[in-house]
Amino acid sequence: MAATIKTIGVVGTGVIGTSWTALFLSKGYKVIVTDPGPSAEEKLQAYLQKEWPTLTKIGVVPGASLQNYQFVKNIDEYLGEVDYIQENGPERLDIKRPLIAHLDANTRPDITIASSSSGLPSSQFVTDCTKNPSRILIGHPFNPPHLIPLVEVVPHPGTNAETVSAAMNFYEGLGKDPVLVKQETPGFIANRLQAAICNEAYSLVERGVISAEDLDKTMTSGLGLRWAVNGPLMTNVLGGGRSFRHFIDHIGPAVKSWGDDMKQYEFRHEPEKKEKVTERVEEYVGGVDLDEVEKGRDEFILNSIQFKSGD
Amino acid sequence: MAATIKTIGVVGTGVIGTSWTALFLSKGYKVIVTDPGPSAEEKLQAYLQKEWPTLTKIGVVPGASLQNYQFVKNIDEYLGEVDYIQENGPERLDIKRPLIAHLDANTRPDITIASSSSGLPSSQFVTDCTKNPSRILIGHPFNPPHLIPLVEVVPHPGTNAETVSAAMNFYEGLGKDPVLVKQETPGFIANRLQAAICNEAYSLVERGVISAEDLDKTMTSGLGLRWAVNGPLMTNVLGGGRSFRHFIDHIGPAVKSWGDDMKQYEFRHEPEKKEKVTERVEEYVGGVDLDEVEKGRDEFILNSIQFKSGD
Repeated sequence: MAATIKTIGVVGTGVIGTSWTALFLSKGYKVIVTDPGPSAEEKLQAYLQKEWPTLTKIGVVPGASLQNYQFVKNIDEYLGEVDYIQENGPERLDIKRPLIAHLDANTRPDITIASSSSGLPSSQFVTDCTKNPSRILIGHPFNPPHLIPLVEVVPHPGTNAETVSAAMNFYEGLGKDPVLVKQETPGFIANRLQAAICNEAYSLVERGVISAEDLDKTMTSGLGLRWAVNGPLMTNVLGGGRSFRHFIDHIGPAVKSWGDDMKQYEFRHEPEKKEKVTERVEEYVGGVDLDEVEKGRDEFILNSIQFKSGD
Repeated sequence: MAATIKTIGVVGTGVIGTSWTALFLSKGYKVIVTDPGPSAEEKLQAYLQKEWPTLTKIGVVPGASLQNYQFVKNIDEYLGEVDYIQENGPERLDIKRPLIAHLDANTRPDITIASSSSGLPSSQFVTDCTKNPSRILIGHPFNPPHLIPLVEVVPHPGTNAETVSAAMNFYEGLGKDPVLVKQETPGFIANRLQAAICNEAYSLVERGVISAEDLDKTMTSGLGLRWAVNGPLMTNVLGGGRSFRHFIDHIGPAVKSWGDDMKQYEFRHEPEKKEKVTERVEEYVGGVDLDEVEKGRDEFILNSIQFKSGD
């Protein structure tokens, strides 16, 4: 049984690592954080100051402090103290493999080591671990992690069941909505679903069926509003007069035929087609203030989360 | 040039037609509405009473009245009066074709006839029109139409440009977000994107990669929250450090490879696989109060729309 988690080690403070650090602090954890980048410490500090008001809205626990972290250039001497590791190194096997082996060798054998890897399955980078690879798994957040509740928990075939439930409990305790990906699969779940949409979106825009702006509007003014509250399966249930069986029997054939048509016009990332889509998207976003878009996105997501939780 | 729209003819009052009627009334239009169903008039009245408070929240214009409609068993004698038709008949060519021909023959030649058809492209059912098929197109709403802003406007190859812009303006004036589908394509846009997600969701759940409940959570706690505010292309722009070109050059290869993997495990609606998914979804929704789900969905969507419009 893993000990109570009090201190978390955060390795790597890019976009994901800084956001995790902010969230951990807001939930009252002590964080030991490291990153080899030249101005990583200053960047982290600036980020924490900037995001703390947002975290306050999501819910800072009593006793939590923005100061409760220690930025260290070399985390080795602290590894014995940490009760959970969230690793956010670059998405490269030649870096992740020795990094994870080093963390495995220098932490207590019972603590969970979670990698934020968004694509590499952990079976590919636990291969050099000699102490206890069974306490290693993926805890893949969604950007920005302190705001988006989803965390994909993906064990490798050798991860033990206790580590899986410890990770699920840990993320739930942070107020996240972890999902369990039971088999390693390329792109896990969310990125696969996202790719399914993107590949069809690229095809429709490249072929001129719809403008880039209207493609996005189809999502934000329609599908996305429903999907933010009911998933695709629940949406099918409601669309089938409250019966999934009725839906898949009666609308399934159309769904399949649309899929067949999509395959016929599949976007294969051909250079000239990529160029065409890129031009159309650039034309669409050219006049848009992306600072405002990002700000509006975060405000909308915060409002959605607060509305759902009944605040 | 089409005359100002004052009176709208609504043909068919199933789920979609009643919702359109409610919306048209809330925006101050007079509505002449017909449906051959035995208790259609009572159902419409009950629906309007029930939904009026919601419409009030979205925005009822001064002078609008819940009473400003006339339910008629035979609309023929009123067709000369209507300035716009929203047709919501059954999704069957053998019904739509003569119905649309009849509406074409008996309305003034300059008014727009929009069909709520969710799948049949209008080129397939304008074939028997003798008066003016160039003023006919699809105005496909999303359920529930008085709440979801999206309307897909889909002309057929013979629809004239004036009708297209009249329809776009009309739906915009209702507070909707119309998108223009420039080529007839099976499933138009939204249903294609939805099918892309569903086919992959069915595959993942059938193969046991993730539970049905967690599949939905991946959407509602992650992807959907972002897509309710930024479409897939804008999400790519932000994910590529504010550059779509950077995104598609660097993450495109992964997106393509996930697509290739999805094809390998494609859900082909095989009977035994359909059964397995259905069982898993039924298990998931078995204990869920669907009245509450539907209520929660509508409240969430209303909140989202109000938040976006700055109310």
